[in-house]
Amino acid sequence: MKVLPFYWKSTHLEILDQRLLPSRVQFIKCKTAEDVAKAIRKMAVRGAPAIGCVAAYGMALAVQPTAKFKPLKSRMGRLKKAASLLKAARPTAVNLAWAVDRVVNTVEGKKTSLFQVMTREAKKIEQEDLAANRAMGRFGARLFKMKKNVVLTHCNAGALATAGHGTALGIIRELWRQKKLKKVFVDETRPYLQGARLTAWELSQEKIPYELITDNMAAHVMKTEKVNGVIVGCDRVAANGDTANKIGTYNLAILARHHKIPFYVAMPFSTLDLKTKTGRDVPIEERSSDEVVKMGNVRIAPKGTKARHPAFDVTPVGLISGFVSERGVFKPRDLLKQVPRKGSSRPPRRAT
Amino acid sequence: MKVLPFYWKSTHLEILDQRLLPSRVQFIKCKTAEDVAKAIRKMAVRGAPAIGCVAAYGMALAVQPTAKFKPLKSRMGRLKKAASLLKAARPTAVNLAWAVDRVVNTVEGKKTSLFQVMTREAKKIEQEDLAANRAMGRFGARLFKMKKNVVLTHCNAGALATAGHGTALGIIRELWRQKKLKKVFVDETRPYLQGARLTAWELSQEKIPYELITDNMAAHVMKTEKVNGVIVGCDRVAANGDTANKIGTYNLAILARHHKIPFYVAMPFSTLDLKTKTGRDVPIEERSSDEVVKMGNVRIAPKGTKARHPAFDVTPVGLISGFVSERGVFKPRDLLKQVPRKGSSRPPRRAT
Repeated sequence: MKVLPFYWKSTHLEILDQRLLPSRVQFIKCKTAEDVAKAIRKMAVRGAPAIGCVAAYGMALAVQPTAKFKPLKSRMGRLKKAASLLKAARPTAVNLAWAVDRVVNTVEGKKTSLFQVMTREAKKIEQEDLAANRAMGRFGARLFKMKKNVVLTHCNAGALATAGHGTALGIIRELWRQKKLKKVFVDETRPYLQGARLTAWELSQEKIPYELITDNMAAHVMKTEKVNGVIVGCDRVAANGDTANKIGTYNLAILARHHKIPFYVAMPFSTLDLKTKTGRDVPIEERSSDEVVKMGNVRIAPKGTKARHPAFDVTPVGLISGFVSERGVFKPRDLLKQVPRKGSSRPPRRAT
Repeated sequence: MKVLPFYWKSTHLEILDQRLLPSRVQFIKCKTAEDVAKAIRKMAVRGAPAIGCVAAYGMALAVQPTAKFKPLKSRMGRLKKAASLLKAARPTAVNLAWAVDRVVNTVEGKKTSLFQVMTREAKKIEQEDLAANRAMGRFGARLFKMKKNVVLTHCNAGALATAGHGTALGIIRELWRQKKLKKVFVDETRPYLQGARLTAWELSQEKIPYELITDNMAAHVMKTEKVNGVIVGCDRVAANGDTANKIGTYNLAILARHHKIPFYVAMPFSTLDLKTKTGRDVPIEERSSDEVVKMGNVRIAPKGTKARHPAFDVTPVGLISGFVSERGVFKPRDLLKQVPRKGSSRPPRRAT
């Protein structure tokens, strides 16, 4: 079964409610930018590239021509409001702001057909993302020389986190297609369980062999099984290569280094943020501690417990073996050579 | 409130059902060795020293003089059966076999009053464990020179895991008593959540300040907060110092080493197993994968998911900064000097 995280329906956006997975497949109908911002904030949709795509459509929805005629000034005002609302929905992922700015820039100087122009640009972002993921998959798979590879992944950097196919899971899908994959160890990824709920679900849909582990089993598995690569996604890569990704990624990078296992970051160039100099400059979102002390409606810690919930951590570039991008695989030291010197926050457009 | 994991009631044993914590405080009445073995197997009681204590009482229950008169032969048969039943209940913790053998040895050559002799020995094991924990607490606290220490702990090596006071948590309790503790980071400890359910509960009972984290937040917390020590318990220490403890301990030891944070193992000598030469010789219990894919009654992974569940992992001695025992703190290289050369599986009796 093809995994579809969202789709555009000419006047509105349908977003798969990932909070209900793996139990139920149900879509949320988003008719306004506010609807989309809410879906992002509440994590019905997550994953940096997917958030970028839906936010782009969300911007278009802000100038939806449902009411008959609206003066340009009022439409531009709504765009501005929608942009700040959407950008604030998740502060760590850089694709969100990047995609919002990109669709806004397409209507510069335009007075009519804003909605058409913006939906077209959103569709383009979506298609580029899918193409980038397929390219990343091919480049990434070349890194694995063995016949039967065992890889470990964290969180969900799959079709559900992107426009489809996935970044880290795109590489894993390609390994499987090439018959070079023995199995995948899937970190359950507390507290939100994206690994157990989403990655396991995606893999099970395509019958790719996997074993679920709790995050704290990673070192034991690295020591006792022949894990020969760790592949993760990313939410924001700073100009020096420091990588913000789902909480627990930094743990995993240290454990991989200790066991001399290569640690790869699947990174579409839209996730590289030149404005952010190092990992220290990445804002780390602290989410509600309820997401830690409760599982569904079951409380797992005593009342009054203070729980921490940083949603992301930063892996220093020194722990990263390579960045797998849609333009090839780069050593951390070569990453900066791939982008133009004059620091724009927008990475150059990808070849599609 | 005093935390009481079990207590002896002259003809039976009451065991606190830790599976119901933190929601409910409820005891299980154990009248037979089978009852005790079941409580251990089902993890109503857990923690190597606590398991040792209840197993000792469980042995006495096998020769409970409830039925009027039983020939000695039949009683010795029942003891043998009870011993193998209890030892099989959890294979990794060494205290279990040690305590069972110790109470059996007390009745050697005796024909009467087996029950009295054995309960007396079980009581002695319990009292020695409590005294050992208090001594460990004092020795361990001396390691922390700062005024306001921030420590991190895994699983539950507390009063609930012992005859009272705790091993790792005994040190933390002593730091708190001496006003040298700022706060404790508590790993929730998936999949069984001993940290979230038990350690957090113990600390909240005594108003010791703590913050709960998911296991995969440990590296982030080590990097961004001033954690100056990791303290864990142990289930079995091999003759070379390799340490089997709750799954996730090995992860944590690697992360502590990476951040140059001392990593201490609280180890009563009853947990040192000279028969086990290195960590490779420790049997690692694989528990049901249901404990990973379900939280209470909620399924968190797709049906058909294969989940791994090694209950323990082995931390190589090279990652351990020191063993805190009831006889003092030892560098790993000095550990073996503390025990007699002739390899008996039974560690020497501790001074009480």
